[in-house]
Amino acid sequence: MANGNAPVLTSDALLNHWQGHRRLTRRMIEAFPDDKLFTYSLGGMRTFGELALEMLLMGVPMVRGVITNEWEQNRSREARPRAEVLRLWDEATKQINELWPQIPADRFHETIKAFGAYEGKTCDLLMYVIDNEIHHRGQGYVYLRTLGIEPPAFYER
Amino acid sequence: MANGNAPVLTSDALLNHWQGHRRLTRRMIEAFPDDKLFTYSLGGMRTFGELALEMLLMGVPMVRGVITNEWEQNRSREARPRAEVLRLWDEATKQINELWPQIPADRFHETIKAFGAYEGKTCDLLMYVIDNEIHHRGQGYVYLRTLGIEPPAFYER
Repeated sequence: MANGNAPVLTSDALLNHWQGHRRLTRRMIEAFPDDKLFTYSLGGMRTFGELALEMLLMGVPMVRGVITNEWEQNRSREARPRAEVLRLWDEATKQINELWPQIPADRFHETIKAFGAYEGKTCDLLMYVIDNEIHHRGQGYVYLRTLGIEPPAFYER
Repeated sequence: MANGNAPVLTSDALLNHWQGHRRLTRRMIEAFPDDKLFTYSLGGMRTFGELALEMLLMGVPMVRGVITNEWEQNRSREARPRAEVLRLWDEATKQINELWPQIPADRFHETIKAFGAYEGKTCDLLMYVIDNEIHHRGQGYVYLRTLGIEPPAFYER
């Protein structure tokens, strides 16, 4: 009866899952008015533009670090036009697709220290990056609603 | 090089992942003042109490349905004291732990129609329930911050 070791998600499935979420996050960035992306927030929290840049700082650098054990940490978090955020987003989409298949199959289950600081199993660290994106995007839904803007449907990927 | 079929998450790993998120969501429910849980919201969105009840309506019924193909849909969404929501949460925690190992290993990759309406691969439907919880909990973080309350740390599970 016990299914404990049954495989549920393969490498391909997790990549597709993430890229589905990343397509939705891209629609969220597009939904923000350009003059609100780095200026509007609630409760003293970060703007959605800052959160989107955080997602970019965590995404490709995490996947590349998983493969190379080199951890990039020096990208700028400065405000920039929405079109530039979208351009960076699309660039990251391609890079993730190119890098992901290079993760050695065993690596997913090895313990690593991401960015020299966050120790854990690789698969958990990758899941954390995805969860962090979903979490902060949920925050962005409230920003959009309070701006009177209908956000993109959560169930569409 | 291509790792496409490499197993990344097993059944046990996904259950642990979910229950880690559920522990954090429980701390969120606890963080809301009792008189705000079903009254406070932003941008015309649902209260965090309503969202927590939705999570309960999706959690155990999804896992049970995956096993039995019977879909429960009649639980009440009415406001109730925080202690009662927490009691239902803890009951669901136990039920999920008891039911999950009964999911047949092959079922994760079969296509089913959840609640008679949502067709998809079982693993994707289960992931959707988890993602939906992370998404709405992110919304709750904004509610708490605008109430002047420090939410529980996202990285603690």
